Amino acid sequence: MKKVVVVGGGVLGTQIGLIAAYWGNDVTFWLRSEGSIGRTEPKIKRYSALMLEDLKKAKALIGNPMGAYLYPHGMIKDWASITPEKIDELIAQGEANLTNNVHISLDMAAVIPGADIIVESMSENVEAKKAVYEKMRDLIDEHTILVTNSSTLLPSMFEKYTGCPERYLAMHFANTIWKNNTAEIMGHPGTSEEAYNKIVEFAGEIGMVPLCLHKEQPGYILNSMLVPFLNAAQALWANEVADPKTIDKTWEIGTSAPAGPFKILDIVGLETAYNINLMNPKTKEEGSVNYKIDKLLKEKIDKGETGVNAGKGFYDYKK
Amino acid sequence: MKKVVVVGGGVLGTQIGLIAAYWGNDVTFWLRSEGSIGRTEPKIKRYSALMLEDLKKAKALIGNPMGAYLYPHGMIKDWASITPEKIDELIAQGEANLTNNVHISLDMAAVIPGADIIVESMSENVEAKKAVYEKMRDLIDEHTILVTNSSTLLPSMFEKYTGCPERYLAMHFANTIWKNNTAEIMGHPGTSEEAYNKIVEFAGEIGMVPLCLHKEQPGYILNSMLVPFLNAAQALWANEVADPKTIDKTWEIGTSAPAGPFKILDIVGLETAYNINLMNPKTKEEGSVNYKIDKLLKEKIDKGETGVNAGKGFYDYKK
Repeated sequence: MKKVVVVGGGVLGTQIGLIAAYWGNDVTFWLRSEGSIGRTEPKIKRYSALMLEDLKKAKALIGNPMGAYLYPHGMIKDWASITPEKIDELIAQGEANLTNNVHISLDMAAVIPGADIIVESMSENVEAKKAVYEKMRDLIDEHTILVTNSSTLLPSMFEKYTGCPERYLAMHFANTIWKNNTAEIMGHPGTSEEAYNKIVEFAGEIGMVPLCLHKEQPGYILNSMLVPFLNAAQALWANEVADPKTIDKTWEIGTSAPAGPFKILDIVGLETAYNINLMNPKTKEEGSVNYKIDKLLKEKIDKGETGVNAGKGFYDYKK
Repeated sequence: MKKVVVVGGGVLGTQIGLIAAYWGNDVTFWLRSEGSIGRTEPKIKRYSALMLEDLKKAKALIGNPMGAYLYPHGMIKDWASITPEKIDELIAQGEANLTNNVHISLDMAAVIPGADIIVESMSENVEAKKAVYEKMRDLIDEHTILVTNSSTLLPSMFEKYTGCPERYLAMHFANTIWKNNTAEIMGHPGTSEEAYNKIVEFAGEIGMVPLCLHKEQPGYILNSMLVPFLNAAQALWANEVADPKTIDKTWEIGTSAPAGPFKILDIVGLETAYNINLMNPKTKEEGSVNYKIDKLLKEKIDKGETGVNAGKGFYDYKK
């Protein structure tokens, strides 16, 4: 049982803390203010309930040939030998762990010392991240490993503020972590092999598939492929070559994938797609395809059609 | 029952002719020489056998929740209401059609007049295509529609040689057409709406999902997305960020797809991937990522590790 501190109680921070608690670690969310507690507590309740619900549903998947695709991969380690009894045990243990192993604190000086692993999962704000690293640095134990869940920023940008550069690296999770159980693990040039390997091991302990990067790479592995792929799909749409549903159908039949690019965009959220497109300098050039993508996405966002969470994006998700 | 002429008896030409014959059309392969007949006849035998084999296997898929994914989509039109008896009927009819409806001819003047649809499926050689269009042009009936299956060349490059520009367009199929049943349909600016719509209809008649492009687009829909996607994946490999299996695993877990980019490359074949990379002007720049990809692919090709068909590519397929 490791002592894990999660810095930040956003969507992903909450999910990271909960999956660590589920697998028996002692987890404390460090939050900045009473206001943060008010926002994080409902998330903890909601995601704990969703996780346990998916675990209960997994019982009905035993023996179903699709079961191996549909069970919550981050919550069950050995599907091949699963039984209803084993799932009952996981449910009982999970309910206990998600209750007893989850704490919230506003007191940094009380929670950082003694932590085995600190997971920084704040929003993508460079200055805010620097500030929190500098606030923590003198409290971090010599054995503690500090990881960041940043999606877009590189560990080399922050290592000098941490006080423990050799024990600092990135571990990047996907949303709905208990189902999409990837942990992309990426050091900066000064990260020690020991710290890297310990995080690979920890990722496995908390039900993740560790995906090892040997170099710093903006976007890690997944987004390095998703971004050009989604851009190409959006270009076909913006250039009026074909409509989103035809483009999806083509990809789905052509590669046997369950979701084409516009279904993925609906899951990612159109605001995120919009922000990613904005990072491309060509988006400013009037008449460029990225300029056209910008306009089309903006139109949909203005109508509130931002994807699955909004009930409508490129597809309709209302019941 | 339409009279279909397939010009060229390569891998895809053969498959196009056979699926059209299977669905009851009268199909003639026009070939250039006795030598071509010697190469095409075994392909006709082999693909006919494979198609009927997959149809027979489909009986065991009825009632299997994975069945809807695995049945040969181009050979069965209404899976939802399928029964073993209906498959037996399709087998009997298919065996008859694949025998009785398939002809080979060296005599262009005998087969082109009276054709309802001519499918040009020659190799990607601009001069050879021009030559065959010019040879056919005075033989083509006024009602005939001429389609090209070219993957990389655009109909606007050839329309003026056809003698029937308003009835000329592209219909692009995928390999193993009886399973991967897409037909990307793309006109040039002078293609008539009537001819376009007739080909959309014909695609449906022969078990394909018609995918409509509203503009000429090099690479159609699928390759317009596959090329940048596969390039991004190969860049991660060439830059030593991660190894092919890790990259595949990341994509497969992250998007729930059955095959990551390197599995797709093994299916596409590494020679094709090599040729596509060569088309990128950056490949000539020493030290560029495409230069590195070129070297790595060349190494594997030299070792004979060219993909699924060779028994080894990024993965091992030997039994």
